[in-house]
Amino acid sequence: MSERHLHLGLFLLGTGSHIAGWRMPGAVTSFEDVPAVVAIAREAERALFDLIFIGDNLNADPTAHPSYTSRLEPITLLSAVAMTTSHIGLGATASTTYGDPWSLARAFASLDHISGGRAAWNSVTTSNPQAAANFGKIHPDHARRYEMSAEFIEVAKALWDAWAPDAVVRDHATGAYFDPAKIRPIDHDGTFFKVKGPLNITRAPQGRPVILQAGGSEAGQELAARHADVVFTVTQDQGEAIAFYRGLKARLPKHGRTEADLKILPGVMPVVAETEAEARDKLDTLMGFVGARDALGILGERFNHDFSGDDIDGPIPESLGENDAYHAFASAMLGKARRENMRLKDLANLVAAARGHWVLCGSADQVADTLVDWFESGAADGFNVMPPWFMEGFTDFTRLVVPRLQDRGLFRTAYEGTTLRQSLGLQVPPVGGSVETLAGA
Amino acid sequence: MSERHLHLGLFLLGTGSHIAGWRMPGAVTSFEDVPAVVAIAREAERALFDLIFIGDNLNADPTAHPSYTSRLEPITLLSAVAMTTSHIGLGATASTTYGDPWSLARAFASLDHISGGRAAWNSVTTSNPQAAANFGKIHPDHARRYEMSAEFIEVAKALWDAWAPDAVVRDHATGAYFDPAKIRPIDHDGTFFKVKGPLNITRAPQGRPVILQAGGSEAGQELAARHADVVFTVTQDQGEAIAFYRGLKARLPKHGRTEADLKILPGVMPVVAETEAEARDKLDTLMGFVGARDALGILGERFNHDFSGDDIDGPIPESLGENDAYHAFASAMLGKARRENMRLKDLANLVAAARGHWVLCGSADQVADTLVDWFESGAADGFNVMPPWFMEGFTDFTRLVVPRLQDRGLFRTAYEGTTLRQSLGLQVPPVGGSVETLAGA
Repeated sequence: MSERHLHLGLFLLGTGSHIAGWRMPGAVTSFEDVPAVVAIAREAERALFDLIFIGDNLNADPTAHPSYTSRLEPITLLSAVAMTTSHIGLGATASTTYGDPWSLARAFASLDHISGGRAAWNSVTTSNPQAAANFGKIHPDHARRYEMSAEFIEVAKALWDAWAPDAVVRDHATGAYFDPAKIRPIDHDGTFFKVKGPLNITRAPQGRPVILQAGGSEAGQELAARHADVVFTVTQDQGEAIAFYRGLKARLPKHGRTEADLKILPGVMPVVAETEAEARDKLDTLMGFVGARDALGILGERFNHDFSGDDIDGPIPESLGENDAYHAFASAMLGKARRENMRLKDLANLVAAARGHWVLCGSADQVADTLVDWFESGAADGFNVMPPWFMEGFTDFTRLVVPRLQDRGLFRTAYEGTTLRQSLGLQVPPVGGSVETLAGA
Repeated sequence: MSERHLHLGLFLLGTGSHIAGWRMPGAVTSFEDVPAVVAIAREAERALFDLIFIGDNLNADPTAHPSYTSRLEPITLLSAVAMTTSHIGLGATASTTYGDPWSLARAFASLDHISGGRAAWNSVTTSNPQAAANFGKIHPDHARRYEMSAEFIEVAKALWDAWAPDAVVRDHATGAYFDPAKIRPIDHDGTFFKVKGPLNITRAPQGRPVILQAGGSEAGQELAARHADVVFTVTQDQGEAIAFYRGLKARLPKHGRTEADLKILPGVMPVVAETEAEARDKLDTLMGFVGARDALGILGERFNHDFSGDDIDGPIPESLGENDAYHAFASAMLGKARRENMRLKDLANLVAAARGHWVLCGSADQVADTLVDWFESGAADGFNVMPPWFMEGFTDFTRLVVPRLQDRGLFRTAYEGTTLRQSLGLQVPPVGGSVETLAGA
C-alpha cells in the first residue's frame, strides 16, 4: 500500500454543492463570477488537488440548484481557468447525446494544448430528457444513449490519435510544414456517427485528454471499464462503495487494463471544522436554509418526478424511480430510503443536502480518519470533494484535512509533473497502430 | 466627418496571413503557440485595436495554410486570451451549417461573460464541402446554407434575449434566486431548427455578442444588412470597395437600421517600413518563399478546384469559379484576373500573397495615406488588418501606421469603454418585446 496515494478532485460549483450554500455568510453567490471561479481553482491548486471538475446540463430549470440554472459553458470556462493556473487538471462535462464527436474531440484537444496537458472530459449521456427540446430531438432511452456514448468515445479517441506526434515538420529551409503521411483520416462509419477526420489540430500534449465518467448502471460501468481513467461515484455507504470498487476494477482485465489504470473517486461533501460541534453548527445553518418543499423540488429534479400530488409527510411514492431519467447511482439512495421506511420528507432532505452524495460532517481528525479508512479499506482511490459553499466551505477542507492526509504520507506534497496524467499516474497512450502502420507504409 | 472614427480589427493567424510568413526570420511558427497568441493579442490591445478576430475551418488539409491545418478551436482560444487582456474585442468564427444554435449561443454568451462584454461571433456558413464528411452530412448548397444561417442567427438572438436583465433575484433573506417569470422559453419551431430554450446562462454583458459577417454574395449581403454589426470584405480596388460600401449601407434602412449600425472593414495585408524600399524588400523576401506550384495549391484551396491538368503558364481555366464552393468575394478577384488576361500563374501569385486580400506595401506615410483615403472616400469604416507574419509584420503596423492615424484624429488614443460594443459605438440591443411582455403578464 505504501506506493498507493490518494487523489483529490474538486467538484466545482460556484455557489457550492449544497443548494443553499450561496446563503452562507460571505459565500460566493454566482457560478458566473469568473474571478471567484479562478480563486477557487487556485486554492485547489495550492492544496495540490489532482483536478477540478465541472458538471453540466443542457437545459435551464429556475427551480433547480442556482449553479445548474445559470452557468458558463464548461470548456470555455476551463480554458479561462487554464491561463490562471499551472498544474491542476481541468475536467469539463460534455454530452455524447447532444454533440458531435469531431467538434468535441477538437475542443478537448484545444483545451489540452491551452493548458499544457491538463484537460479531462467528463463524458455523460445527459439523463434529463428536457435537454432534447433545445436540440429539436427525441431523447434516446438509457440503453441507446449508452450505445451512442460507446461509439462516440471510440471516435473521439481515434481522432485524438490521428495525428502522429511527429506530423509537424516545420522545415524553414524547404518550406515543408507538415508530413501529410502522418495525418490520417479515421474513416469512421458506425451505427450512430460517420466521421472522416482527422482533426485540424495537432496531437494533444496528453495524447488523449483524460476521460472521466460517472455512470453507475451496468452499461455505465462497462463503458467506464473500457474507456474511463477516473470514475466519480455517488455513495453513502462504505460497504457498498467497497463492493462497487471491487466490481468495477474486476471488469478492467478483459479490456487489457490494470487496476491502476482507473481511479475511483466517491463524491463527498465535507462539512468540517476544528471541532465536531462547530462542524455540526455549520451543517445546521446550511440545512436551516432549506424548506421541506424546496427539498422536494430538488428530489423531483433528481428523479425527474412530479410530486405535486404527493403528501410530503407520507411514504415515498411507489412510482418514484420507475422511469430511467435519473442517474443510476441515485437508485442506491432510493433503495436505502425504502429499506429504512423513510417518509418522503426524509428522502427529500437527504437529497437536498448534497443531491444524494455522502455528507461527511465532523472535526478535522474525524473527517481525515474516515477518508483514510475508506481509502485503505479499498472503497476509494481518492475523493471527489464537493464543498457545500465557497470559499470557507472549501478552505475548511484544504486547511484542516489536506495537511492531515499529507502527514500520513497518503497525499502529495508537490505535483509529480505538469500534466493531469502525471498527477494521476497514468501513461500517455501510445499512438494507435493504424496511424503508425499507415504512416510507415 | 469629424465624429467618424476608424475601427481596426486584427485578423489573428498565428503564423501570419501570408502562407510563408512563418519562414520570416524570428517569426512565430505555430498557431498553437498560446503564449505567442497572447502576446499578439496584447500588442493589438496596446495599439487600441477594436478587436482580434480568428477565422476557422472544419477540416484539415495539410497542403493549405499552416494555420488552417493546425489551429486551436477559436472560442476556447479566445476564452484563454480574455484572461490576459482587458479591453480588446474577441471575435471567433463559428459555422451555422455544422453546429446547433443552442450550443453556439451558449458558448458565445459564456465568452461574453468571461471577457466582460468583448465577445463577437463571426458567423459563417462553411464554404468548404470537405467539412461535411466530419459530421456525417451532405454539404448543403449555397442558397440553402444562407437560409439555414438566417434562421440560425434569429434563434441565437432570441436565445440571448430570453433572460431578462433582472431575472436574477438572489435574495439572501427569502432564498429566492431567480424570477422564473423573467426566464422564458423561445419555442422556436422553424424550417431547419426546433429550439425550446432558454439558455442556462444569464443575459450576456453586451446583451447580444457582436455579430461579424464576411459574405459578399447577394444572400450574404442581405444577411449582413439584417444581422451583422461588422462586415469584413475582400477587395483589391477602391472603386469596387466604395460601390460595395454604398450598396450594403443602402440595404440597412429596410431592416430599421442606420449606417452607423454596421461597420464595413476591408481586409488589408500591410507590408510597411520606414521607407518604401525597405517595405518592398520585405515583400520580396516573403514572396520568394512561395513557389508557383505552391501558389497554385492555395488557389485550388481558395476555389476548391483541381489544377493538376492545367498549364501553370497558360490561361486561367474556363471552369474555374463554376461551382459555388468558394467565398463570393473571390469572384471579384477572378473577374479582375480575366479582364487583365492574367496567366494562371499570375492569379495564383496574387492569391498566394494574402489569399486574394489587398496587399498594401509601402512606407509608413504611404500606407497611412492610403488607408485614410479609403476611409474618407467612403470605401471603409476601418480595416481588418492581416499581418503577413508575427510579430514584426504586425508591430511594423502598430508602431508606424497607428500613430499616424491618431495624429490625424481618426483613431482613438484610449478605449471608449470596456466592451466591444462601446469600442464600435454600438448600442446594447433592447430586450426583445416578447420577453418583456410575457414577464409582465
